[in-house]
Amino acid sequence: MAARLKIMPMGGLGEVGKNMMAIEYGRNILVIDAGLMFPESDMLGIDYIIPDWSYLRDKKDRVRAMIITHGHMDHIGALHHFLAEFDVPVYATRLTRGLIEVRLRREHMLEQAELYTFAPGDVLEIGPFTIEPFHVCHSIPDTVGLGITTPAGLIVHSGDFKLDPTPVDGWPTDLAKLAEFRSRGVMVLLSDSTNADQPGTTPSEAVLDDVFRQIMQRSPGRVIIATFASLISRIQQVVDVAAQQERKIAIAGRAMVENTKMARELGYLNIPQGMLLNLQEIKAVPPQQVVIMATGSQGEPMGILNRLATARHRSLRIQQGDTVVVSSHTIPGNEETVHAVINRLYQRGADVYYDPVAQVHVSGHAAQEEQKRLLNVVRPRCFVPIHGELRHLKQHGKLAREVGIPQENIAVVENGYELILDQKRLEVGKRVPGGYVFVEGSLVGETGPAVLDERDKLSQSGFVVAVVHYRRSTGRPVGRPRVITSGFVFAPAANELLSGAERVIRKAAAVQAGTAPEMVEHLVQQALSDFFYQQTRSKPVVIATVLE
Amino acid sequence: MAARLKIMPMGGLGEVGKNMMAIEYGRNILVIDAGLMFPESDMLGIDYIIPDWSYLRDKKDRVRAMIITHGHMDHIGALHHFLAEFDVPVYATRLTRGLIEVRLRREHMLEQAELYTFAPGDVLEIGPFTIEPFHVCHSIPDTVGLGITTPAGLIVHSGDFKLDPTPVDGWPTDLAKLAEFRSRGVMVLLSDSTNADQPGTTPSEAVLDDVFRQIMQRSPGRVIIATFASLISRIQQVVDVAAQQERKIAIAGRAMVENTKMARELGYLNIPQGMLLNLQEIKAVPPQQVVIMATGSQGEPMGILNRLATARHRSLRIQQGDTVVVSSHTIPGNEETVHAVINRLYQRGADVYYDPVAQVHVSGHAAQEEQKRLLNVVRPRCFVPIHGELRHLKQHGKLAREVGIPQENIAVVENGYELILDQKRLEVGKRVPGGYVFVEGSLVGETGPAVLDERDKLSQSGFVVAVVHYRRSTGRPVGRPRVITSGFVFAPAANELLSGAERVIRKAAAVQAGTAPEMVEHLVQQALSDFFYQQTRSKPVVIATVLE
Repeated sequence: MAARLKIMPMGGLGEVGKNMMAIEYGRNILVIDAGLMFPESDMLGIDYIIPDWSYLRDKKDRVRAMIITHGHMDHIGALHHFLAEFDVPVYATRLTRGLIEVRLRREHMLEQAELYTFAPGDVLEIGPFTIEPFHVCHSIPDTVGLGITTPAGLIVHSGDFKLDPTPVDGWPTDLAKLAEFRSRGVMVLLSDSTNADQPGTTPSEAVLDDVFRQIMQRSPGRVIIATFASLISRIQQVVDVAAQQERKIAIAGRAMVENTKMARELGYLNIPQGMLLNLQEIKAVPPQQVVIMATGSQGEPMGILNRLATARHRSLRIQQGDTVVVSSHTIPGNEETVHAVINRLYQRGADVYYDPVAQVHVSGHAAQEEQKRLLNVVRPRCFVPIHGELRHLKQHGKLAREVGIPQENIAVVENGYELILDQKRLEVGKRVPGGYVFVEGSLVGETGPAVLDERDKLSQSGFVVAVVHYRRSTGRPVGRPRVITSGFVFAPAANELLSGAERVIRKAAAVQAGTAPEMVEHLVQQALSDFFYQQTRSKPVVIATVLE
Repeated sequence: MAARLKIMPMGGLGEVGKNMMAIEYGRNILVIDAGLMFPESDMLGIDYIIPDWSYLRDKKDRVRAMIITHGHMDHIGALHHFLAEFDVPVYATRLTRGLIEVRLRREHMLEQAELYTFAPGDVLEIGPFTIEPFHVCHSIPDTVGLGITTPAGLIVHSGDFKLDPTPVDGWPTDLAKLAEFRSRGVMVLLSDSTNADQPGTTPSEAVLDDVFRQIMQRSPGRVIIATFASLISRIQQVVDVAAQQERKIAIAGRAMVENTKMARELGYLNIPQGMLLNLQEIKAVPPQQVVIMATGSQGEPMGILNRLATARHRSLRIQQGDTVVVSSHTIPGNEETVHAVINRLYQRGADVYYDPVAQVHVSGHAAQEEQKRLLNVVRPRCFVPIHGELRHLKQHGKLAREVGIPQENIAVVENGYELILDQKRLEVGKRVPGGYVFVEGSLVGETGPAVLDERDKLSQSGFVVAVVHYRRSTGRPVGRPRVITSGFVFAPAANELLSGAERVIRKAAAVQAGTAPEMVEHLVQQALSDFFYQQTRSKPVVIATVLE
């Protein structure tokens, strides 16, 4: 039997935002991207989530390489965890490699990593795979999609893309290369679904120039623009407009400072001599000649924007006349925080521009009309929507049907399903076991659903621990029980409730002589829970511990 | 000195969504609306928040009446708490009164409440106030704004409004009455700011008819439409389209069933004879002739939509061919949950329509162009934006300047500021003390920031309680310490860590003879915290209790 081609989006069912994919032919596996996902609001205490790559663990010797499509955290953020387990070379474009190096250095993993640089137009031969990266537009420069020729046929992987006709760096998505792939016959297209529920076309980055210009012209004082630290093209746009307006620029936020430095060194960011000052130097510049780029556009507690909103930044303070621009898409789940930050900025006297008040951000991902255009240019035999929640994949699948891909050649699958392809058909294979891998402090994959359930309970009503000294021979408590509580009621003001609890404990712990302490624990716990519910209609976590 | 007119949005600084307002003239206070606000995501364990009306407590004898503008929870949800403290008559339109009765009955407060019904066009004389309610369009029928003539001048309160030219009930906002107010001279306009950051005009309810029709025509099976239980006009729209399509209808969700019953009895909802079935009866109807209206469009855990998504409903199950329509605006903070519900509905085989895939919801609030139109029709001397976060109030203030209200006649204030008005000017007075009043189970106003901080800590890393039996005479622990933990690590798998903790405790509790147990508690706590941080980089809440 001939070797078969398998494609698998890695990770647990229903997970998104980690964007890791394995391509397997015979005894050769190519891995594309290794991103992290930020925790959802019910994943209490979790720092971030990495892909579940347990499928690859017993095939370690088959993994030939890791190819990274671009330098965003949802594509490179889990790389140091991956490289700790898999000793494989990593391939990336120059800027992406720069961002990977920043990340690996911080995790003390740079020394042992084997990194290679490629450019669009290069051809990489890795095992049975011939990889042809091609340029795509996205919200970070140097993003690529991949043509991957395998013995079974040609795969086209879109990367994260949009079809911006006027991108900041003047380099549109390489439709010519995609047309060339088409002329060779594309077996399967794997394409970015992030914006598959957005009708129309994503606006060009160019529309922001005018908006930034107007805001800077109108603003009587400093203009503070917050965005993602990795949005190099946004930084370039702000620099260009600020230069026209004769404003100086400073960067606030460590990651953005580091990325700016690196992108300048590599030639991806062009800032005129003398225009970039540090936060100290820029204090000497009149406010109407100042632009500050800052991180924290998602309202992150330690981000610059939140610290400005709550006056917790060491050297920067919002002052009357400041204008703040929130130039990023608010990631679902962060809306409340971002709105609170905006309200606080207003309280401190700033004027604020944010979507929908002004178009101060455009997405880096293709909307429906662009996704259909890509499908039409590539004309693949089969189609697999990738990168997105199930709702996005489903919509993208509908678009593919609309442009004429037959239903049986479209596979809409969540992470963890094997897709098996040959010249004839696309088959959805078995689901590989896997789930969420939580990273929390130094613990990787140790926090699980049971602990998250406990945290959820604690977050709702706190806990009460009752400590009882008990004498089995008499079946009576000795001395006063201790009641330890946190997150339930405000203890200093709840004397009555807590002394009531003591009485309940003493009563519940007065049992028949000889009763086992475990039984007493059970009785005390039950009585206390009932008492608290009856008194407050709340259900704190109640634990009794009985010492003999 | 003449009596002065004071207007005050009640509640803590930065709070929104409770929409309570006091209007005070001499020894007479009129209160408008008493809503509740749902907790933000960092208000762990809180059920809801009610206005802080402590300002009114020492003026109880001056409160003449409560006027309710419409029956949404953010306008009536705190009424039973208010009436428990203030023995005042409540005035509302018929449908609003019906919804108030449902709410008060559930809280066992209906008997003692003094309720009066009014209709737009009526004139209410209450103390020195002459109140002229006028009809406005909103997402619930029978909504009013208020003209309030006081000895100091005429106040116009917009209520929650939009200027829908083709509302479901055929009754547009009463611009003629507003023009009449203008001819008398309006001292101050208080106007709904909810959508003040939305450019343009809010689409009419009528646009939904076509969308619902297309969805029902296309759907091969049942159509399940989820929305707010109080969105009576949406229910009417679905009924009308379903009747044309010869589909039967059933209602799932207690609140919606109750509201539908009440609205039908009062004549606000028109459902043809024989069309409304219960969930049991509708099972006998072929799927392509079924529409089910359901609650839970915000993804609430106990809402119908979430129970369908997770197969937890007693009698309803999603089946292949079902189409689900999420017909409501997702309240900020709920996005993640709603998206998760949509993804799960897809997993179970449903097709799902939601914004932005299709326009299946329109807002009930005016956008910028309508807000400006209202300002132009009323032409008030002064303007106070109400109902919204500070960012909305600020935008609304900008709109008022654009239409020509002088800056000094616009007061953009958060809750709790007194506004003092006379023939000459609008003055922002002092801030009245007040803050968030949290309701949690049967506790009203008892949960405070300290407890929320504790819950936040517990939610991140759980807790560890160490119980040590200690002999002061020897300065040594007795027996094995107990370690009680929840939400920190998965205890069954963390043996090593927890036995390490025992060693740390024993060591820390071995002190100089005679050391006070409080000191030992402190030492154990410190040593354990250090140990856990060093082992896990997490910081659980650590409490030591030492028994002598």
